Amino acid sequence: MAATTELISALLLFLLMCSSNISSSEKTRRPEPCKRLVVYFHDIVYNGKNAQNATSAIVASPAWGNKTTLATPNFFGDVVVFDNPLTLDNNLRSTPVGRAQGFYLYDRKDFFSAWFGFSFVFNSTRLKGAINIAGADDIAKTTRDLSVVGGTGDFFMTRGVATFTTDAVEDDRYFRLRVDVKLYECY
Amino acid sequence: MAATTELISALLLFLLMCSSNISSSEKTRRPEPCKRLVVYFHDIVYNGKNAQNATSAIVASPAWGNKTTLATPNFFGDVVVFDNPLTLDNNLRSTPVGRAQGFYLYDRKDFFSAWFGFSFVFNSTRLKGAINIAGADDIAKTTRDLSVVGGTGDFFMTRGVATFTTDAVEDDRYFRLRVDVKLYECY
Amino acid sequence: MAATTELISALLLFLLMCSSNISSSEKTRRPEPCKRLVVYFHDIVYNGKNAQNATSAIVASPAWGNKTTLATPNFFGDVVVFDNPLTLDNNLRSTPVGRAQGFYLYDRKDFFSAWFGFSFVFNSTRLKGAINIAGADDIAKTTRDLSVVGGTGDFFMTRGVATFTTDAVEDDRYFRLRVDVKLYECY
Repeated sequence: MAATTELISALLLFLLMCSSNISSSEKTRRPEPCKRLVVYFHDIVYNGKNAQNATSAIVASPAWGNKTTLATPNFFGDVVVFDNPLTLDNNLRSTPVGRAQGFYLYDRKDFFSAWFGFSFVFNSTRLKGAINIAGADDIAKTTRDLSVVGGTGDFFMTRGVATFTTDAVEDDRYFRLRVDVKLYECY
Repeated sequence: MAATTELISALLLFLLMCSSNISSSEKTRRPEPCKRLVVYFHDIVYNGKNAQNATSAIVASPAWGNKTTLATPNFFGDVVVFDNPLTLDNNLRSTPVGRAQGFYLYDRKDFFSAWFGFSFVFNSTRLKGAINIAGADDIAKTTRDLSVVGGTGDFFMTRGVATFTTDAVEDDRYFRLRVDVKLYECY
Repeated sequence: MAATTELISALLLFLLMCSSNISSSEKTRRPEPCKRLVVYFHDIVYNGKNAQNATSAIVASPAWGNKTTLATPNFFGDVVVFDNPLTLDNNLRSTPVGRAQGFYLYDRKDFFSAWFGFSFVFNSTRLKGAINIAGADDIAKTTRDLSVVGGTGDFFMTRGVATFTTDAVEDDRYFRLRVDVKLYECY
C-alpha cells in the first residue's frame, strides 16, 4: 500500500518534471547580478533581562511556549519581531549602514527552520531606500536562498536573491547572519 | 447624505477605471504559463491533544481567543504557523515532495478569510528550491488567486499566480488545499 | 578603536557604492507608471470596548504588552491583524471599494516604525482582484515607499511602489493612510 503510493508519487513527480522543463541546461542560463552587496545583521533576542541590548523580542508563541524563552522543540511556533543593526563587516559594534526590520518565525518541530518577512532599510546620505525580502530559511543548510521581492529608493523595483549564511550563534541569545544580496533586475 | 457619498464614490471609481485602462480587451492578453505544477498541502492544527499529528499551531490570537481553539467569530485574529507536507495527489499519506512552510492569519470578523505568507520548499534529488507566495485567501470563493512573489533554486527568480481550491475540510482541525501554481516568468 | 571601526565602515561603504553603480544619473531613468490609483484605508484598533467598530486587533505583543493596549515604548512588538475598509476619498463613511487585509507589526523601540504584509482586495462589479504589498513603514517620514510585490485579477502579475502618507491619527485608536499605488509592470 505504502509502496504503491510511493510509486504513484514518483510517477507524478516524473511527469511534473517533464512538463515543467526543469533541466540542468536551463540552469546554466542564470544571469549575472546587476547589483550586489554583502551585509551582516545582528539579532539579540529579549530574554527578560537584557532590555537594554535586545534588538528583537518574541511576540507570539505556541500554547506550550512563553515570551522570554524560545520554545521546545526547535523554537517551533515562536514569532520574533526585530529591528537589527546592519553592518558591512561582522562586527556588532561597527557603525550601522541601515537596519534589518521585520519578523521571523520558527516553523519546524523536527529541526531548526524559519520563515522571514523583512526589509533592509537604508537611510544614510549615501544610500537610501529599502530591499524587501521574503522566504524560507532552512537553517540546517550552510547557505539558504530567500527572495528579494521588491525595492524602493536606490533599489527601486529591484528583484533578486538574498543568500543567508549563519556567521555566528551564541547560546539562544545572539546570532549574526551574513547576507549576500544579488539583484538581477535593476532600474 | 449617504446617497451623495455613494454617488461621489461611484464617480471617483469611474474616473479611476478610465485612468487605469482596465478593459476586457486587455485581459485577453494574458500569457501562457512557462511552468505549471499542481500540489496539495495538508494542515492539521494543534488542539491541545494532537501533538503527534499536528503540522501547525495557533501562535497568536485576539484578546478573546486562546491557542488551542480557533477564535469566534470566524477565527478572526488567529495566527497559525505551519510546516505542512506537500503531496502531488490528495492523499495525506502519499510521500511528500516538499513542505509548505510559513504562516496564515484569519482577518475577517464577518466571514472566513485569511492571509498567507509562505514557501513551497522542495529538497529532493529531482527538485530543489523554493516558491515564495503571499496574498489574501478569500475562503468564500471556490478559487482564490495569490501571488508567487519570487523563487530560488529550480524556481530561480520566478513569478506567477497560485490558485487555491479547498479540497477538504474536517471540523476545525484538518484542511487540504489544492494549489495550481502557474509561473509566467521563468529563467 | 571606535574611530577605526567607523573608518573601515566608511571605506567598505564607499567600495559598495562603486561596485553597485548607484549614481544619480541612473535614478533619472525611472519610468512612468502604467497604472495608478489612490486609495485610503481606515484602521480602528480593538481596545476592549469597541468590538462593534473595530476593524483590527492586537493579536501578539511582547512579554511586557497586552492585547487591548498598544505597548510602551512605541508599540514595539505589537502585531495587528486588520480588515480595513478601502475608500476613494478620506471619509471613513464613504462606500468602500474594497478591503485592506493582512497585518502590520511595530518593530522599533526608539521610534514609531512598522512593517506591513497585506493586500488590497477589490471585489466589485467594476474592479476585481488584489494588489499584494510588503515593506517597511518608517512612520517618522512624511511619505514612505513599500513594494507592490504582485497582483491578481485586474492587477494580474503587476509590480510597483505603494507610497503611504498618514492622513489622520486619533489617539491610539484610529488612523487613516493615504496610499498612492504606482504600478510599473502591467500585463
